[in-house]
Amino acid sequence: MKQFRIIKPEIRILGVDDAAFVPHSKGFVPVIGVVFRGGYWLDGLLSTKIEIDGFDATEKIASMITNSSHKRQLRVIMLDGVTFGGFNVVDIKELNERTKLPVIAVTRDRPDLKDIRVALKNLPEPERRWKALLNAGQILELSTRSRKERVYVEIDGILEEDARKIIKLTSTRSSIPEALRVAHLIASGLGNI
Amino acid sequence: MKQFRIIKPEIRILGVDDAAFVPHSKGFVPVIGVVFRGGYWLDGLLSTKIEIDGFDATEKIASMITNSSHKRQLRVIMLDGVTFGGFNVVDIKELNERTKLPVIAVTRDRPDLKDIRVALKNLPEPERRWKALLNAGQILELSTRSRKERVYVEIDGILEEDARKIIKLTSTRSSIPEALRVAHLIASGLGNI
Repeated sequence: MKQFRIIKPEIRILGVDDAAFVPHSKGFVPVIGVVFRGGYWLDGLLSTKIEIDGFDATEKIASMITNSSHKRQLRVIMLDGVTFGGFNVVDIKELNERTKLPVIAVTRDRPDLKDIRVALKNLPEPERRWKALLNAGQILELSTRSRKERVYVEIDGILEEDARKIIKLTSTRSSIPEALRVAHLIASGLGNI
Repeated sequence: MKQFRIIKPEIRILGVDDAAFVPHSKGFVPVIGVVFRGGYWLDGLLSTKIEIDGFDATEKIASMITNSSHKRQLRVIMLDGVTFGGFNVVDIKELNERTKLPVIAVTRDRPDLKDIRVALKNLPEPERRWKALLNAGQILELSTRSRKERVYVEIDGILEEDARKIIKLTSTRSSIPEALRVAHLIASGLGNI
């Protein structure tokens, strides 16, 4: 468990999101990580590919990070939720163990675990996916820029209080942390390459 | 020729750069365009692919722009030089005509036209490439953040004075305009997808 003595406004955050893909298709989907300085500016970009509805998201994202020259500067990993490329679930406990970095998964809407559980039944090895989802732990509700703007958060390797501070500090341009806003814009613009 | 009455600090700029590739290989290379608000923040991302050492850069970049929902907000196109994917030359006159947007090509080093002319001889249709290069017009030397930090610029559809102001205004984090710094970071990080 990382405990922050101080959170600098320019804390290096990796924001991770996946590109668009055709649901239930076979193949791979690009995943990108943006290295962001607090709520301010982009310092670098990492990329990898994961299998649609596969089981490699945790490992691929962990390797993308540990193989990067930015690794040493990074203080936190932020994920756009815990499901990537369909239901390729990131196990945030394992991601934290592999990278030794705190992980914060953020969504705008409260994840509906009941609906997810039903959806998983149509996929191979639903119990393995479900276990990874449960490893994300409790879903916390936190406010971002204002008390009205809220996000839903799952954390590992970091105190709720520190996660709250980092999310508030870095949601400078919208109601979500800048690293995730930018990761989403970039990942969703990659459709033509 | 677009003449700016006023240049807003948040003027929408498209910064265009290409990804890394193996020189002299066959195939395609990703090209991305970042929609940037002045020197401040990312608003969107466009992408396309061009042929290595081919002739489709002008057309592909023009279509990427005209097909985008961001087109109406854009005020200026900034290119990382005029050669993409090796010697796939962007004809900035033609790009300006097709998009009706001013074009500013920026490099940190003065383009060495003599060296380029020699290199072109090893490629098919060197004269066609050379003509597109000459269409870029005179190479201007402009300062960015400080008088010491200089870039080399070729322009079309915009006055030198306006290009100078836009470059100065948007070089907020480094010695080159933020749209191009970020386009470069993103394009060069896409190697693994």
